[in-house]
Amino acid sequence: MIYIIRRERFNAAHRLFRPEYNDTKNLEVFGKCSNPNWHGHNYTLYVTIKGDINPETGFLVNLKTLSQLINERVIEKLDHRNINLEVDFMAGRLASTENLAIAIWEELEDAIKYIGAQLHCVKVCETENNFVEYYGNN
Amino acid sequence: MIYIIRRERFNAAHRLFRPEYNDTKNLEVFGKCSNPNWHGHNYTLYVTIKGDINPETGFLVNLKTLSQLINERVIEKLDHRNINLEVDFMAGRLASTENLAIAIWEELEDAIKYIGAQLHCVKVCETENNFVEYYGNN
Amino acid sequence: MIYIIRRERFNAAHRLFRPEYNDTKNLEVFGKCSNPNWHGHNYTLYVTIKGDINPETGFLVNLKTLSQLINERVIEKLDHRNINLEVDFMAGRLASTENLAIAIWEELEDAIKYIGAQLHCVKVCETENNFVEYYGNN
Amino acid sequence: MIYIIRRERFNAAHRLFRPEYNDTKNLEVFGKCSNPNWHGHNYTLYVTIKGDINPETGFLVNLKTLSQLINERVIEKLDHRNINLEVDFMAGRLASTENLAIAIWEELEDAIKYIGAQLHCVKVCETENNFVEYYGNN
Amino acid sequence: MIYIIRRERFNAAHRLFRPEYNDTKNLEVFGKCSNPNWHGHNYTLYVTIKGDINPETGFLVNLKTLSQLINERVIEKLDHRNINLEVDFMAGRLASTENLAIAIWEELEDAIKYIGAQLHCVKVCETENNFVEYYGNN
Amino acid sequence: MIYIIRRERFNAAHRLFRPEYNDTKNLEVFGKCSNPNWHGHNYTLYVTIKGDINPETGFLVNLKTLSQLINERVIEKLDHRNINLEVDFMAGRLASTENLAIAIWEELEDAIKYIGAQLHCVKVCETENNFVEYYGNN
Repeated sequence: MIYIIRRERFNAAHRLFRPEYNDTKNLEVFGKCSNPNWHGHNYTLYVTIKGDINPETGFLVNLKTLSQLINERVIEKLDHRNINLEVDFMAGRLASTENLAIAIWEELEDAIKYIGAQLHCVKVCETENNFVEYYGNN
Repeated sequence: MIYIIRRERFNAAHRLFRPEYNDTKNLEVFGKCSNPNWHGHNYTLYVTIKGDINPETGFLVNLKTLSQLINERVIEKLDHRNINLEVDFMAGRLASTENLAIAIWEELEDAIKYIGAQLHCVKVCETENNFVEYYGNN
Repeated sequence: MIYIIRRERFNAAHRLFRPEYNDTKNLEVFGKCSNPNWHGHNYTLYVTIKGDINPETGFLVNLKTLSQLINERVIEKLDHRNINLEVDFMAGRLASTENLAIAIWEELEDAIKYIGAQLHCVKVCETENNFVEYYGNN
Repeated sequence: MIYIIRRERFNAAHRLFRPEYNDTKNLEVFGKCSNPNWHGHNYTLYVTIKGDINPETGFLVNLKTLSQLINERVIEKLDHRNINLEVDFMAGRLASTENLAIAIWEELEDAIKYIGAQLHCVKVCETENNFVEYYGNN
Repeated sequence: MIYIIRRERFNAAHRLFRPEYNDTKNLEVFGKCSNPNWHGHNYTLYVTIKGDINPETGFLVNLKTLSQLINERVIEKLDHRNINLEVDFMAGRLASTENLAIAIWEELEDAIKYIGAQLHCVKVCETENNFVEYYGNN
Repeated sequence: MIYIIRRERFNAAHRLFRPEYNDTKNLEVFGKCSNPNWHGHNYTLYVTIKGDINPETGFLVNLKTLSQLINERVIEKLDHRNINLEVDFMAGRLASTENLAIAIWEELEDAIKYIGAQLHCVKVCETENNFVEYYGNN
């Protein structure tokens, strides 16, 4: 069993809030992240997959294939977008980094199987100080 | 003459567009940065100041003083904000990194003199690949 | 189960030595880290906690709360301090990075439970080349 | 049980190809990594070992010892070398990062036991975007 | 006058040697960088250009245009290549980082003028410890 | 004219204070950096030198020579040392980063000339947020 990790990046706007809360309550719960005019981040995404090495290529999977898959299913939908308004797989979810990591996992899990590996971890870095890791629903 | 550099960070939303352009024209000129629903960045700011060392303290200026000054005049106005809609010193300016660097210079120049040094450079990093430096109107 | 990681930093002096050893023996065992006049580091601390997402907030716990907790219990006691002389939770312990990681775990474990999560990992980075991870007494 | 991690670096040339493929087929499978004239990388290696703290020293093992061991067995053989042509422990193996991580594991596993710890993970970073982790043959 | 900086990366093999020296002499002058079987690096390139902001766009030049230009003229010729054998603009030059920085300057200088700016600095990072900067033939 | 930059690192303890101040006054002027029990940092040093390329080698100067010179004259005196108590070239000087940069310049200036180049800049990074640059007494 070998693990490979691919780093990808996207820049997006978001806001943390509950629509049923008023502004004061949102500010109380979510702090400045609730700003109604949005703010944003340079998100860094680390996708870890695992499986057996293909003896023909020496690869678990070709990292170019993995990168294309992550870009098509995740990055192109998030990059230079508003996470709350424009990202299909985040519709109806609070735009927290935790929920984002889980939603990215769901977008990638089956597609990773299809290229012959298993998704192991989705790590989303929101700032240089804050990170979320999700290892699936075990 | 000694130079000291202070790094500060802010996370903000922005959009590159001209209101007199239609969406097609904005997309043509500004690419995905023109997204009407905003996007955002973790901006990193490096402020370089220069001057003579105070022999009493061994400091050009106390870095805590410099950091507080940058935070009050720049970071608190930008962090978790929408650069196009909420930042007084960016009103009426295109929210490009170039304009942002110049506007931050203007916010800081006199205040740096007031604490006994000269502003030398404002560097704004928008992503890990894109940076702007401004050395004043020389 | 979701994991969140918070990075914090502290700058401290320390020395590796055993009081019952003489200087030659300390130098032999601990190398230049045994310097009787101290040396120091910019330590970086990564605290990983795990648990279930609160559906109301989308958070495992609010990262501001986590950061405050780590600062009150750990950072304020270590930052700009001498680890051997001034840190209550290191009293009587050799000031190695290994012992520091374990002591930080002990300072945080119950407090993390109190805010509704479980401590998963304490990682202490002493230099860009040397790191210690502790996952508790399992 | 405590984990310590040591970072080391080496700069090497390599090429991904199968000798029984012609150039077109190698290009198809390995892309530009198959360039017959070689290319190269600044590889970063993270070696994680685990075990119990020695109460006399506060160390799992002395990091200087660990670093020397990694340098003698791995870095000196790889640094400023051609991985395909000059590295004994890569002879007969495709020079993929996956195979490199496994080969480094094999070079280190017994030697780590000999200094009183267990090898836990070998991580090889080929670029800032591509990483491989190997945790042994479990 | 505003400065913008674009970071690009390439991975290449090279060797430092003079063909008229024998191996012993090359080893004496160039150390392990003279290895006849090549070695390689992840090079990082920072290109700084300067000029006036276009008031219509808020840009010095569009960074996408700058990036494309650097890729077409420099990166595509260097990436996954052997600097000694395959790079037209390095033909007949010793493959030192110094010479590489100057050659990249020569490849970019006129093209940067053509897009309405001036080349200010070419910085080439060979490792995390070694960097070269070239500001032109002034 | 070409510029080359060498990065070196050292870990040291220090304290900011004036012996003629009492503790209260030192705390007021120097903050927590005045802690009588010391604190410390992982300092990063960037030394920039400039001059003409040697056409025989393609080097300004051999980086190995430059690194050895910096290590002998600066790093070995600072690393794992107490800057206030043990570093000859800091004797009688306040141990601020500004003074440290100037003192390192003085240690290096003539020696750099001796190897055929000119010292251009000494940059000392105390934390990830605080840096000092010195370009000599011009």
